[in-house]
Amino acid sequence: MTETTVSPFEELSLESLRRRRSVKWRMYDPDVLPLWVAEMDTPLAPPIQSALNDAVALGDTGYAIEGDLPAAFVGFAARRYGWTVDGEAPRLVADVMTGVRIALGACTDVGDRVVISTPVYPPFFEALHALDRVIVSSPLAYDVEAGHSLDLDRLERDFADGASAYLLCHPHNPTGIVFDRAGLAAIADLAERYGVTVIADEIHAPLTDPAIRHVPFASLDHPVAAASFTCVAASKAWNLPGLKAALLVPGSLADTSAFPEELWAGAGLFGVIAAEAAFREGEEWLDLIRAGIVERKRLLSELLADRLPDARYREPAGTYLAWIDMRAYGMDDPATFLAERGRVALYSGTKFGSEGAGFVRLNLATSKSIIIEAVDRMAAVLKS
Amino acid sequence: MTETTVSPFEELSLESLRRRRSVKWRMYDPDVLPLWVAEMDTPLAPPIQSALNDAVALGDTGYAIEGDLPAAFVGFAARRYGWTVDGEAPRLVADVMTGVRIALGACTDVGDRVVISTPVYPPFFEALHALDRVIVSSPLAYDVEAGHSLDLDRLERDFADGASAYLLCHPHNPTGIVFDRAGLAAIADLAERYGVTVIADEIHAPLTDPAIRHVPFASLDHPVAAASFTCVAASKAWNLPGLKAALLVPGSLADTSAFPEELWAGAGLFGVIAAEAAFREGEEWLDLIRAGIVERKRLLSELLADRLPDARYREPAGTYLAWIDMRAYGMDDPATFLAERGRVALYSGTKFGSEGAGFVRLNLATSKSIIIEAVDRMAAVLKS
Ligand SMILES: Cc1ncc(COP(=O)(O)O)c(C=O)c1O
Ligand SMILES: Cc1ncc(COP(=O)(O)O)c(C=O)c1O
Repeated sequence: MTETTVSPFEELSLESLRRRRSVKWRMYDPDVLPLWVAEMDTPLAPPIQSALNDAVALGDTGYAIEGDLPAAFVGFAARRYGWTVDGEAPRLVADVMTGVRIALGACTDVGDRVVISTPVYPPFFEALHALDRVIVSSPLAYDVEAGHSLDLDRLERDFADGASAYLLCHPHNPTGIVFDRAGLAAIADLAERYGVTVIADEIHAPLTDPAIRHVPFASLDHPVAAASFTCVAASKAWNLPGLKAALLVPGSLADTSAFPEELWAGAGLFGVIAAEAAFREGEEWLDLIRAGIVERKRLLSELLADRLPDARYREPAGTYLAWIDMRAYGMDDPATFLAERGRVALYSGTKFGSEGAGFVRLNLATSKSIIIEAVDRMAAVLKS
Repeated sequence: MTETTVSPFEELSLESLRRRRSVKWRMYDPDVLPLWVAEMDTPLAPPIQSALNDAVALGDTGYAIEGDLPAAFVGFAARRYGWTVDGEAPRLVADVMTGVRIALGACTDVGDRVVISTPVYPPFFEALHALDRVIVSSPLAYDVEAGHSLDLDRLERDFADGASAYLLCHPHNPTGIVFDRAGLAAIADLAERYGVTVIADEIHAPLTDPAIRHVPFASLDHPVAAASFTCVAASKAWNLPGLKAALLVPGSLADTSAFPEELWAGAGLFGVIAAEAAFREGEEWLDLIRAGIVERKRLLSELLADRLPDARYREPAGTYLAWIDMRAYGMDDPATFLAERGRVALYSGTKFGSEGAGFVRLNLATSKSIIIEAVDRMAAVLKS
């Protein structure tokens, strides 16, 4: 990016970050280090910065319309994932969870059973609850040494039990699992056998480890893939959640007849403008981010081994979230203790389902000095 | 604002405006003059521009939180309307229509009757329909010479008929009525008599004619006012609809027990930042806008008298929308004809209810040359 290639994670000082008005930096008292919600502590990618500066100068703050965003995503998906998306397919929505709710509305009814692989992103529970769907928690397999993985036998039992849909988080938040082609094909086969529609939330897809290429579920050559719904956005990888734009991509055989007329209601124009710049011109910066995440995942391993040796953590394949098993410290909710005593804000594992008791989720999308200081604070209060 | 005080409406050339990506400028072919949806063709107010530039530079694009926006609105409401708002009352929502839906959910049930004063803003119908409320259209009185006014007898009959709520559009879109204190008190008395809750959409309130001071419904000293819900935003007067932020202000006696937990879901951080700058530092620019609207309302009167003498139009007291009676030209839907033949996009009156047949809504928030060209185009095809 620049000649010296400073990582974007090192560009903003703690003092600058404290001037931010986003929820990550304003929810807690100013002496708390915030490593909870999934925002990144980076400046904007230069192409996004320039597109937004132009929009501000032009007063281009009216109502959103999808414009060239679908085309920009189609190009990105082809280059990045080798995924051929029909240019007419991607539909503008306000955010990924709105896309998920619309997809759920399209393929399930009130009272239907919807499977999720727990522990999982907390709004999945809230969305299913709000839509009066029955939440079927299908726990991932967990082994302290090997980490988390899909439990296909369990998934099959939960599908067989009358499920209508499977809400797949791929890459998986909070565990960082990136499902490979074989794993996705196994899911698709089970879904076909039991008549389950797959909704894939792929918001974290651009952020896989550089050694791994994300395989979109919908890119499988499989009837279940063609009938699936995929939710994507630039909002996680380029840190744009406050600007409000995402895309809902129905497969060619997906039943969209129950989509609401104004799918895009709630989308923000700056979200559209920023996402288009991200998908078209943001890959160079994205690769800096991915390289920076590798370093920070490694750093956390070293810090925990040194200072909190009883914490269990495996470097995740996907995204910038660390899912740490703190059960050895004997607390059901270490996050509350760490926020109050350690002045470090993490997400409590219990928000992600009952399997999360004793876990915390730590956001690595920040400077190394903040990560070091956070682990130091955690270690200080857990030892004492 | 500047030494020469060029009106903000004259700052951007047609060529610049055509570079915008908002729906106003992208929905129609590039040879169509767009005077339909309620966006303004102005640059941003300088304080908003500077707040947004700071946010872009800081990468402050994470999740929204209300921050100091409620306090900024409380100050604005006090200075501008003499309305004392409890600092804890204003709640962040994504946009005004989300606020309206939340208020409707709080004070009415499925199947309840909700009164609206038609012709009125089309999404009122859509929101009531989506929530399965019964839409009770209570037509305004209309006299070709005197224009539109509230028909209190009709409103009383519609309240008496078992209405649960009245969704008041104040100032009124599309007619521009600004209800005065006596008119509001009459509404409040009727609402008290028949047990009707008032929800006031006051998004256009900052944009009254400079000679008129807006009276918030909730500022009345009346039990119905204390139990009311008010929806406000900076998005219309400072042209920020694409940034996604509004406030829902329940009165001190309003029943908020059915509010959803995450009221703010969908709000955008740039909307919050921009609205705070607007309410705190945007009044000087607002007054330039109000002065500019007066000139453009007058200009339209002159142009119509000269070129379309059979069109009926009264300069509205509120906002920048002209509601023009074109029935003399003998078409049910003049807007479609004018878009196709005249290459001028206006809103069709029928979108606002059956009373709107033969009317068009024309957006005056643009340069004088665009208004002149639009009326010229209308006159050319209506004469031929
Ligand atoms: C798996 C997953 N889905 C959805 C979201 C939220 O996306 P949005 O804000 O676009 O609804 C997140 C945010 O972290 C996430 O991790
Ligand atoms: C009366 C009225 N209410 C609400 C809105 C829309 O507000 P929002 O985009 O915040 O939902 C408008 C927009 O023109 C309006 O005229």
